[in-house]
This record gives sequence, structure tokens and C-alpha cells, in this order.
Amino acid sequence: MHDKNIKDVIKTLTRFLTGNLLKTGLDGYVIGLSGGIDSAVSAALAVKAVGQEKVFGIMMPYKTSSENSVTDAQELIKQLGIEHTLIEISPMIDIYFDKIDDSNKLRAGNKMARERMSIVFDFAHKMNRLVLGTGNRTEIALGYTTLFGDSACSVNPLGELYKTDVRAVAKELTIPESIQVKAPSADLWSGQTDESEIGVTYAEIDKLLVELLDNSNFSMASLSAKGFTTTDISRVVSLINLNSFKRNLPPIAPLGKSEIPDKIQLQE
Amino acid sequence: MHDKNIKDVIKTLTRFLTGNLLKTGLDGYVIGLSGGIDSAVSAALAVKAVGQEKVFGIMMPYKTSSENSVTDAQELIKQLGIEHTLIEISPMIDIYFDKIDDSNKLRAGNKMARERMSIVFDFAHKMNRLVLGTGNRTEIALGYTTLFGDSACSVNPLGELYKTDVRAVAKELTIPESIQVKAPSADLWSGQTDESEIGVTYAEIDKLLVELLDNSNFSMASLSAKGFTTTDISRVVSLINLNSFKRNLPPIAPLGKSEIPDKIQLQE
Repeated sequence: MHDKNIKDVIKTLTRFLTGNLLKTGLDGYVIGLSGGIDSAVSAALAVKAVGQEKVFGIMMPYKTSSENSVTDAQELIKQLGIEHTLIEISPMIDIYFDKIDDSNKLRAGNKMARERMSIVFDFAHKMNRLVLGTGNRTEIALGYTTLFGDSACSVNPLGELYKTDVRAVAKELTIPESIQVKAPSADLWSGQTDESEIGVTYAEIDKLLVELLDNSNFSMASLSAKGFTTTDISRVVSLINLNSFKRNLPPIAPLGKSEIPDKIQLQE
Repeated sequence: MHDKNIKDVIKTLTRFLTGNLLKTGLDGYVIGLSGGIDSAVSAALAVKAVGQEKVFGIMMPYKTSSENSVTDAQELIKQLGIEHTLIEISPMIDIYFDKIDDSNKLRAGNKMARERMSIVFDFAHKMNRLVLGTGNRTEIALGYTTLFGDSACSVNPLGELYKTDVRAVAKELTIPESIQVKAPSADLWSGQTDESEIGVTYAEIDKLLVELLDNSNFSMASLSAKGFTTTDISRVVSLINLNSFKRNLPPIAPLGKSEIPDKIQLQE
């Protein structure tokens, strides 16, 4: 993105956040702060949109979360001047897996993401606020999220920004340096990084997603000519296809009923 | 519904469940069994569709859940001959609310619904299965669900059946009598019943929903002439409008990006 574009984008995103709060008549936003760049940018945009007193941050580390996840979130909180709390999720997670005595790191990671979702929504209810989403277009396209976990929110300001766009916005918003430079990680287990798990760098993924999603370029020959490897193309396309269910509402058995309208306006 | 209709409906719903399992290539269904009529019908349809060995039931009572919730679920499990487990959710819920030292019964109920969702999805992951939904058209229209809680699933066979249709299907499928006759309840706190909480009976709600949703009859005069009270009409319409957000994916800030396709087919 060019510098002028970034400023326009930020304006659009903050207007979206201001508008949604007005429309719902609620008192502000609640957001889970992981210490990562997505939640940092989302929180910073919300502060810009509705003011620091209307944004509440929740840190929810698990005992294996990297120490940085909390210290980086705290630095952001300080910079933004927002109210916040810290809730260790280890007890809720551990008591469940102790009970069923069976787990693996992916299942544990999903349970954590859903626990965090339920906590953020509980605080939103308590404070009469909306839950601020943090999912970017790259993550949504690849389905690199826990369904009904980190992807769950009331409104999402980042969903049309690629991961690399989020970085550009972070720079423009002067998000703390430590957050800007660290390797993206879902932090679901110690040492996890997104890029090693996906097997392709975000820079490469995003260039490819622009071709696939924005230019509708589905030609292997043309994509190869642009320098993408067959392995990377196959990996990204298979993730897009495999995880499409995460981008849709659960399918309902069809009995010919019409869709339920969003708003019914009664006449006299 | 007429008897012939019910048989056709059951055929359509079981075909939907058979088809979805085939399409995804997974090993079966997992369902949370509350002892209520919706999860009972959903489970019975799945057994009809894919066989008893491919349906797994999970009972997840909280300490305030009525005793019936477990005994009724057990009777259904026996009738269907399905594998099952019981997981008390009280420890996970209580440790959270003890920690934050602040709650109310609605927040506790939502936390329970989301805990159950995360458990059912954990088992689905573990068993390589889909999560079977239980939300009916009445509940979806009114938004009488916990978002990302009981409404969350992989596929939903009941979404186009009104609550009264679910009852007719339950009768046809000879669901245990105790489940068929008891007052519908989300069982989120002791003594709760849906109808007393909503303030209108399901029989009345469903007749009204048929007018509003299926006949697009939005005329107060015409609805009143059909015998609906102004209070009931206003109550139902306001729930439909207020909870429309539960029927949609969270809104994303628009930057002019195209929708991400469900399936990309690469060309040579």
C-alpha cells in the first residue's frame, strides 16, 4: 500500500468502528490482546475511532504463552492508555484436559482460542459492549483460525487487510516496535510461528492471494511465470478450499423456507 | 405438518446428513445431548441417516441442570444405541467466575453454552467428525440462542423446522415420551422455561412466524384480525430485529475487496 492509501484506509476503518458503535447504541469495544500485531492494530484503530475510554483490553495468557505476549500487550496498553485486565486461562483449560485425560497441541490450542472467545464475550455482555475482531484477509482466506474461537467477534475492522497491509497500518499507527518486528504466532504452543506452520512466508502468501483473490488469476502457467513455486501455489489453494467452511455459516438442511429477514417493518 | 409431509421431511433431512458426511469424508457426527427435544430429534435423524455407530452423544450438565436433563438424555441414548460420554462442566465454569468474582445468571448461561460448544468441537476434532447442530427455525428467527454457543455447529438438520415441526418429527420418530412432553428449556438456570422467558407460547410464536416469515404478512391490521395480540406481535418482531446479528457473519470493514471464493479450481 502507498502512504496515501494507508491514511485513507485508516480513515475508512475508523469510520466503520465509529459507525457500528453508534448503530448498536452500545458503550464501547472489548478486545482480547495477544501481544500480536493484529489485535494491536485493531485496538489502536478502535481508540482512534471511539476514544481510549471506550476500548477495554483483555490479556488471556496460557501458562505456555511466551512471556512477550503479556509484556508486549502491556506496552500497547500503556501507549493507548486503555483500561484492561489479565485473566490466566490455564485453570479452565487444564481442568478440562485433566478430566478427559487425552489431548494434543492442536486440540489444546483450539480449546484456548474458544476459552478466550467466551471470556471476551462475557466481558462484552458485562460492559454492554461489542467484541472487536482481529482476523485479517490472509488468515480468513487460508482459514488459519479456530472456528468459533479467535475468528468470533461482533465486528471486524481488519478482514479486508492482508497480513502485510496490517503491518503497514501498524507502522503508520506507530504500534510498539517489539510488536511490529516479532514473528507472527498464534501462540498456541511454545515456539509456534505461523509461517513455519503454514510452510510459506506471509510476504509470499499475500502476493499469491492478490493474484488469486483480487486478480482471479487461477492459471498455473501464469502464476509460475510470476515466480510462485508449484508447492506454494498448491499449499495456499488447498488451504483456501479446505477451510471454506470457516468463512460460511453452518449449512442448514433445505426445506424450501425463505431466508429470515434482518429487519421486519410492521405496517398498520 | 401432515403425516405424509413429515415422512418426506424426515427423508430430506436424513439425506442432508448422509450427504454432508460423504462430502466431507469424515467419520461421523458428535452431538451435545441436553435431554431436550431438539438435540434428541437431531441425534435420531443422524442415526437414521448414517447409523448408530457413527453418532456420538455428549451430556454436559452443570450442577444446576435439572436431573431430568441427564436421565432423559440417557433414555434417548439407550433407545438409539449410540456411544456417549458425560462431562460435568461445573469445574470449568466455576473456576472462571470464582476468578473474576462477578456474574449473573444470563452470563453464566452463556458461558456454559460456549463451554459446551468448545467440548463438542474438541471431541469432533479428536474423533474426526462433524458437530451436529440443533437450532430450529423458531429459535434462529428469535435469536433465542447463545452466539458461538449452542448455535455453533458444522451442519444443522433442524434450521428450517419450526419448534412445533420439531415436535411433530419427534412424535414420528418415537422420541422418548418424557422428552416429548416436557416444557422446553435452555436449562441455563434452575426452573427456566423458554416460554415463560420469551413471554409467548411456541404454538403462538410459530403461527405468527409463519405469517411473518413464510407469508410476508407485515400488516398489524391483518395479523390482529387473525387473532394475534399487539403485545405478542411486537415482542416477536422486536426479537427478530434485535437479534439479526446472530443470523449473520460478523460484519467486516469494507475496503472494496471481492468475496473469497469457496473453491478455487486451478487451470494449467
